[in-house]
Amino acid sequence: MTWRPGDRISSADDYRASLRGRDLRVHLKGERVREPGDHPVIAPSINAMAETYELADTDPSLASATSGLIDEPVNRFLHVTEDVSDVVAQNQMQRRLGQRTGTCFQRCVGMDAINALFSVTFDIDAASRTSYHQRFRTWLADVQRQNLVVGGAMTDPKGDRSLPPHKQHDPDLFVHVVGEDADGIVIRGAKAHQTGALNSHWLLVMPTQRLGESDSDYAVVAAVPVDAPGITYIYGRQASDDRAYGSDIDAGNACYAGQEVMVVLDDVRVPEEHVFMQGEWQFAADLVERFTAYHRRSYVCKSGVGDVLIGAAALAAQLNGVDKASHVRDKLVEMVHLNETIYAAGIAASYESFERPAGNFENDGLLANICKHNVTRFPYEIGRLAQDLAGGLLVTMPGDEEFSDAEIGPVLDKYLSTGPDRLTEERRRVLRLIENMTMGRNAVGYLTESLHGAGSPQAQRVQIERQADLAHKRSMARRLAGITTPETADTPATNSQP
Amino acid sequence: MTWRPGDRISSADDYRASLRGRDLRVHLKGERVREPGDHPVIAPSINAMAETYELADTDPSLASATSGLIDEPVNRFLHVTEDVSDVVAQNQMQRRLGQRTGTCFQRCVGMDAINALFSVTFDIDAASRTSYHQRFRTWLADVQRQNLVVGGAMTDPKGDRSLPPHKQHDPDLFVHVVGEDADGIVIRGAKAHQTGALNSHWLLVMPTQRLGESDSDYAVVAAVPVDAPGITYIYGRQASDDRAYGSDIDAGNACYAGQEVMVVLDDVRVPEEHVFMQGEWQFAADLVERFTAYHRRSYVCKSGVGDVLIGAAALAAQLNGVDKASHVRDKLVEMVHLNETIYAAGIAASYESFERPAGNFENDGLLANICKHNVTRFPYEIGRLAQDLAGGLLVTMPGDEEFSDAEIGPVLDKYLSTGPDRLTEERRRVLRLIENMTMGRNAVGYLTESLHGAGSPQAQRVQIERQADLAHKRSMARRLAGITTPETADTPATNSQP
Amino acid sequence: MTWRPGDRISSADDYRASLRGRDLRVHLKGERVREPGDHPVIAPSINAMAETYELADTDPSLASATSGLIDEPVNRFLHVTEDVSDVVAQNQMQRRLGQRTGTCFQRCVGMDAINALFSVTFDIDAASRTSYHQRFRTWLADVQRQNLVVGGAMTDPKGDRSLPPHKQHDPDLFVHVVGEDADGIVIRGAKAHQTGALNSHWLLVMPTQRLGESDSDYAVVAAVPVDAPGITYIYGRQASDDRAYGSDIDAGNACYAGQEVMVVLDDVRVPEEHVFMQGEWQFAADLVERFTAYHRRSYVCKSGVGDVLIGAAALAAQLNGVDKASHVRDKLVEMVHLNETIYAAGIAASYESFERPAGNFENDGLLANICKHNVTRFPYEIGRLAQDLAGGLLVTMPGDEEFSDAEIGPVLDKYLSTGPDRLTEERRRVLRLIENMTMGRNAVGYLTESLHGAGSPQAQRVQIERQADLAHKRSMARRLAGITTPETADTPATNSQP
Amino acid sequence: MTWRPGDRISSADDYRASLRGRDLRVHLKGERVREPGDHPVIAPSINAMAETYELADTDPSLASATSGLIDEPVNRFLHVTEDVSDVVAQNQMQRRLGQRTGTCFQRCVGMDAINALFSVTFDIDAASRTSYHQRFRTWLADVQRQNLVVGGAMTDPKGDRSLPPHKQHDPDLFVHVVGEDADGIVIRGAKAHQTGALNSHWLLVMPTQRLGESDSDYAVVAAVPVDAPGITYIYGRQASDDRAYGSDIDAGNACYAGQEVMVVLDDVRVPEEHVFMQGEWQFAADLVERFTAYHRRSYVCKSGVGDVLIGAAALAAQLNGVDKASHVRDKLVEMVHLNETIYAAGIAASYESFERPAGNFENDGLLANICKHNVTRFPYEIGRLAQDLAGGLLVTMPGDEEFSDAEIGPVLDKYLSTGPDRLTEERRRVLRLIENMTMGRNAVGYLTESLHGAGSPQAQRVQIERQADLAHKRSMARRLAGITTPETADTPATNSQP
Repeated sequence: MTWRPGDRISSADDYRASLRGRDLRVHLKGERVREPGDHPVIAPSINAMAETYELADTDPSLASATSGLIDEPVNRFLHVTEDVSDVVAQNQMQRRLGQRTGTCFQRCVGMDAINALFSVTFDIDAASRTSYHQRFRTWLADVQRQNLVVGGAMTDPKGDRSLPPHKQHDPDLFVHVVGEDADGIVIRGAKAHQTGALNSHWLLVMPTQRLGESDSDYAVVAAVPVDAPGITYIYGRQASDDRAYGSDIDAGNACYAGQEVMVVLDDVRVPEEHVFMQGEWQFAADLVERFTAYHRRSYVCKSGVGDVLIGAAALAAQLNGVDKASHVRDKLVEMVHLNETIYAAGIAASYESFERPAGNFENDGLLANICKHNVTRFPYEIGRLAQDLAGGLLVTMPGDEEFSDAEIGPVLDKYLSTGPDRLTEERRRVLRLIENMTMGRNAVGYLTESLHGAGSPQAQRVQIERQADLAHKRSMARRLAGITTPETADTPATNSQP
Repeated sequence: MTWRPGDRISSADDYRASLRGRDLRVHLKGERVREPGDHPVIAPSINAMAETYELADTDPSLASATSGLIDEPVNRFLHVTEDVSDVVAQNQMQRRLGQRTGTCFQRCVGMDAINALFSVTFDIDAASRTSYHQRFRTWLADVQRQNLVVGGAMTDPKGDRSLPPHKQHDPDLFVHVVGEDADGIVIRGAKAHQTGALNSHWLLVMPTQRLGESDSDYAVVAAVPVDAPGITYIYGRQASDDRAYGSDIDAGNACYAGQEVMVVLDDVRVPEEHVFMQGEWQFAADLVERFTAYHRRSYVCKSGVGDVLIGAAALAAQLNGVDKASHVRDKLVEMVHLNETIYAAGIAASYESFERPAGNFENDGLLANICKHNVTRFPYEIGRLAQDLAGGLLVTMPGDEEFSDAEIGPVLDKYLSTGPDRLTEERRRVLRLIENMTMGRNAVGYLTESLHGAGSPQAQRVQIERQADLAHKRSMARRLAGITTPETADTPATNSQP
Repeated sequence: MTWRPGDRISSADDYRASLRGRDLRVHLKGERVREPGDHPVIAPSINAMAETYELADTDPSLASATSGLIDEPVNRFLHVTEDVSDVVAQNQMQRRLGQRTGTCFQRCVGMDAINALFSVTFDIDAASRTSYHQRFRTWLADVQRQNLVVGGAMTDPKGDRSLPPHKQHDPDLFVHVVGEDADGIVIRGAKAHQTGALNSHWLLVMPTQRLGESDSDYAVVAAVPVDAPGITYIYGRQASDDRAYGSDIDAGNACYAGQEVMVVLDDVRVPEEHVFMQGEWQFAADLVERFTAYHRRSYVCKSGVGDVLIGAAALAAQLNGVDKASHVRDKLVEMVHLNETIYAAGIAASYESFERPAGNFENDGLLANICKHNVTRFPYEIGRLAQDLAGGLLVTMPGDEEFSDAEIGPVLDKYLSTGPDRLTEERRRVLRLIENMTMGRNAVGYLTESLHGAGSPQAQRVQIERQADLAHKRSMARRLAGITTPETADTPATNSQP
Repeated sequence: MTWRPGDRISSADDYRASLRGRDLRVHLKGERVREPGDHPVIAPSINAMAETYELADTDPSLASATSGLIDEPVNRFLHVTEDVSDVVAQNQMQRRLGQRTGTCFQRCVGMDAINALFSVTFDIDAASRTSYHQRFRTWLADVQRQNLVVGGAMTDPKGDRSLPPHKQHDPDLFVHVVGEDADGIVIRGAKAHQTGALNSHWLLVMPTQRLGESDSDYAVVAAVPVDAPGITYIYGRQASDDRAYGSDIDAGNACYAGQEVMVVLDDVRVPEEHVFMQGEWQFAADLVERFTAYHRRSYVCKSGVGDVLIGAAALAAQLNGVDKASHVRDKLVEMVHLNETIYAAGIAASYESFERPAGNFENDGLLANICKHNVTRFPYEIGRLAQDLAGGLLVTMPGDEEFSDAEIGPVLDKYLSTGPDRLTEERRRVLRLIENMTMGRNAVGYLTESLHGAGSPQAQRVQIERQADLAHKRSMARRLAGITTPETADTPATNSQP
């Protein structure tokens, strides 16, 4: 049975089929890639996304949910949270998928965008007599029925970071509306660092920052099919990406990888029914804040990836015969401790969710920022400890061609053996996996993207300061210190912790 | 209206009254203290405990709950958790009380002991045809009705740490049964580091570690009234405890403090109805593990104390006129980040609670250890940053006698003023509070006890290793590395995370 | 043989005698202290200073040097560095004295001030036809001959930190010249955080920061006898300072302690021959920078104090019978690693000294800042680890009165014994020492003063930025990246490392 | 003028010529590489080594010295240290070469091996009436005259790490003597992780660990020409090594790289005059300890590489227009602080050198271990901060083929511009350099090799523990705590710090 356009995607195979024959404009290695699914660099990223379908099959309670929009089970990545347990389940699913793929499975941005837009469109309508929310529900219901992948496209190139969109030397440095008629709008610009864009069916284009009134053309949210005319995808390079052309072993994690592209929107037409914000610049900040609240907590996925790296380090130690050494055990404990600390803040944020007037549930913002901020630090230390346990061979090991060579291979096997029945291939495989995760393709996701995704570290610090309610804390100190003079005002409290 | 023995304690004042006239044997500063409530060193620790009553009055939804045992509202510290929200609410209450007192309010050990014993007595009975659980319920119902304070007495002096109880050179180094008749038992030994023991009405004596069959006399759990014959209390010194005899300002936090005593049990008789384990050495490990699971998560209280210290540092910066400096703001953000990371792991552990067969709910053990382990690190860094923001005057400021001196006082005021209308007393008060919390009486609770309470750091690392399920993590790594050879067995998994 | 005023001080006993009968105005605990040497709080600080005399006796190659000014051996604390090895020897002596006293021995500020003034007075004279340098040599030669203690008095109270001295609401918030005649000047103001001022014979009053032309009255350097008319000393409180009134054991380190006082200069007259700068505001910045260059490297003393704390932790572990446990050994290694890292940067700064035109040698400024900046961090972590190894008894141990009590003492000995022949007094003593160094009197010096002495952390960061020569580093990166476009200018380089 | 075999190598070009036509057995990418100098992966590693010749030309005072062996100037990498300043100059040269190459220049192992062997051969002869030292001087004088590169070959594959050499399942897992006749010996085995072996002229084969009497065949030191019959070189893969085949820009640092190979010694014959130890198993530990003392301090080179990375991060921030943001400046300061802390411990170790009986100078062992141990931590944090300042484009930037594409290139330039005249190529170049150093070819040297080179972290901790002299530290604590009972013995002191 073969999937055809318009069919519901009901398996990972259907999903792979759905990406074929789309005639996208994709550029990589100086060539236009006709069929991404056949490209050795791109295919592993499709596999990672496909796991989101696979998991919904094999563990539906974890990776699917019954949507109130269509009263049917849908993939959890397309679900609007209806209670606290939905928000929590997102995190649990994310950790599991991190464990399954060891990389970025790319579908969280869309999930978090859908949930943020659900409440923001509701609030715009309440304030402005628009009808974005109903439009959005209609579009989303259809996406849910077909079980499609939605990519969230937020990050503009930004140009000179000290200037707002309308003051840039080139107006296209942020996506904006360049044309409008009775039936729709035309948008232009680009979105950088787009995770999994090629592997999606729809892109949700959104503004990337707080906007002023002069930026109202930039206040646009639109759903765009990935294969809409006018879109070009330029593929980003990753560390050791050329390993994809060679041996499975040297690739480290041959099956799964992330994907980052630049999406160029060159006068892309969007019909009215797919426009969910147009000109309401006052709501751009809300959208960004709600999206990042969801998304910074979504970085719990890295604790799943961390589980793999801890496992790889433990395995390397075992294969080296040193897993009982006290310092080795202590380092593994430290890795687990850091990894669970990441998980804890994310899942805590989810458990402390509250309901928006639109009816969806949103996690605590402060704890989400705490989670993400730990993610900007701990994976690097976990990675360092993994390299410590791996040993120096991690970066001096010859390539698979040498191990496969009739003359050289046996010499390597002789000298890299750690005992009479120890297989060197196991060691090679686990070391290549650690290399992949700490300095190869998936280090992009596990390390650098952990720093910059969903906002760089300083963005979290700004948000933590806003939500810290220092005035309240100062008043606690005043009381205990016996200070009775009047307080000085400060930023109002925004979190509701005890 | 005055509280009388036997009355329900229905206010903080009742509570204070209930501690009077008990004729305890309390030793401090070379003297027997006749009435602890009148002693300047002890009174602040009573105030801290009294806040647990006060909060139940002012915020009953936070600090009380309806007990299924007596179908009446009880103080949450006496409540057996009946659902997940009960476990979560414990943490929220603990953070609030940390904020209210800036120190250890001493009532958590009892709360956690009650909850651990609830399920352990149930399990012993199920295995051994004993009737400890019903006895325990009867005793607890009575305690709930009277609204008493229960102290949990676990830590034995331990002697030579490489030997089990029965091999110590002195058999009393762990509490044990030294006599038994038809109506009850007689116990002997001591319990060290007893937080708030003097401020309690009952002590729950429990074994401190896993026991072997030869240690069965040491497998004893008993409820003992604080004023039972044979008990001596020897008060522990704290840093700067002598400040309690002097000026309120120099005390730093004149109202609240912690309390640690050594409790010596010299042939204390316990009637049968107050014995909840006797000889079932196999269950000692369960009791310790469940108690520490609850209690390591209870260290969320330190995030409440941290809120005070962060507020004090912010206030000091404000009074020094440097609160807008970027490095000052950045340090405050870092303090908040670390403090919320502590909170996150504790509250996450509580949210991930599960039901025991006895019907009570118990938090996740791994995340509880993660919480406590962060508590052994972050308060020290928060304290260091607070001292950074306080400035050097923190440790060079003259005493209150100098500020009060008719001649010297005005000179100090002149030179310590930071502007024409800046009051030096505010600065003095907040600096003394920071001193109190980082190197004074409440540093004992905020720093050292954060290290050692509920088990020293290495105890958490042992537990984290046990619960890390490295075999499962290794299998994830094997799959992604493409290793297909059979796995090597390892410690069985004990946590159930995704 | 008794020391008399005017005699050369040739022993620690002479030194103690030299402090007697001076009729200083010293305020502590609401009283005027007539004879500081008899005061239990002050005496230990005199002992610490006295060790600087003792060491010159017992290890003259380390603690004395032949001065080119008088062609005689002098105490190294009074010596102007004549070659690189002199600068290095200062650090070695400082570490040793830290090891001998476990606290601040107070004589470094004067040593560093003498060395900084030696070159600054030379440079002023070269620029301004003044004769400060010769005056300074004459004064110093006399001080060397008598072997006196010189205190360096730099830190003004500073008032509103956003304003320069002449704009403060009270002109006295920085020390300034308030009168002048043919023979000398009159100065007024105060100096805060004055380490060991009472234990000195001379104070070198110096400006505390870069000055502008309008601040020229504040550009004053003067040598003032400690007992000059018009000076008041107000003693600063320290954590647990009241322990000095009680048992030796509970004091922790009964013999040695630091000392911080506020010095108030109320119209103090200084004859011309003791004035070494008056009005040359342009040189205030040089003086501060040279002094802090010397002084930030002098914090190597903390590695000597750290040696004591590491030893105390190792001893506590040994007495607890756990010194062979792998985690205990690992923590001791970590403490040593951090401690030696402090030492390394200081001694490296000293080895990389250069000669000033005046002929004295001055250490590298960048590495001195690196040393001090590590000192603002690592002692806190070393202290935390020491508390970890000490165990919880550190903060729950009863006082000496209880141990000395005929009835209670034996009970405590029974229960705190760790084996049949283990002495509890040893444990008590070492735990009290650790308490003293991490939260007691000497924590003031080992922790808080490590943060703020010689400039708070941010002061080092400002200086590190200035000396980092980022432009040079950018040019290295440009070359390797193959960038050939012209460079953008930046702060000029100030360090001369390879 | 062309260099010919036997000529002195007097320039970088001579050096390159000297590597040609040697008919080595080198395996890489499944092929035998006939001329390594022409291979795109290998050539950059030759360039890095060539800088050691270049620097001796352009800065002879830094990179050359007059050798007492031949009374002529020699490259400092071939010089035996004759005074403290020689040891210090090694470090200064190493930092400079790190700055020049941004990678490992590979010649330190040989330098440190020469210096260690100089004293060890002397000591063997003194104990055993052998004549290794004279042989070694003769050989070295010749190497100095020709100005050759010496590689130090120490690390055996080690097999099962819990077993000594003679108990391995395969006796060849450590290099050993397998034959001997009147003129020399035959050795067999392999050396792993051999830095720059291919780029050398001689290999100094040495044992890798302490040996027992049963391992005496493994106690062998021999100088072997790189092109000796029986040697095979198997090239190690590095992260992103395939970038070497493509665009200069994407390579990140196109000119310089490190090199790691496995060297297989298959019955290699060594004439007697090139054997410097044979059977003296008692001296293996001395050799390893002296070599690692020198070599762990040689990791100061990483502070030079760190200078490049800091410069690259500062440049990236400048090109992004954010270099004045306070958090950016603060991160650069932190990077400098960590980098200089590495330098400080290394240079301090060198300054604290002492003379061996053989007449050469050797640095302090404890501080060398401190230096290396910081190197196992700080480059990772510096790398993390560099990635923070680089921004997310670091890992999402399209490849050079896209930027060079006639259609796509201008689109990328349009969207990646940060202002009207900002060149994207500069940004691309600096980002690729940062990628290269933190997750590409030179991350191998800057990060992983910083962990494992000269011994993994735990090896330093073992050595730090040995040299910490805890017994002396405990005695300091005892004195201050007033403990007078007799001390317990411990490891004897090995360092001689004050």
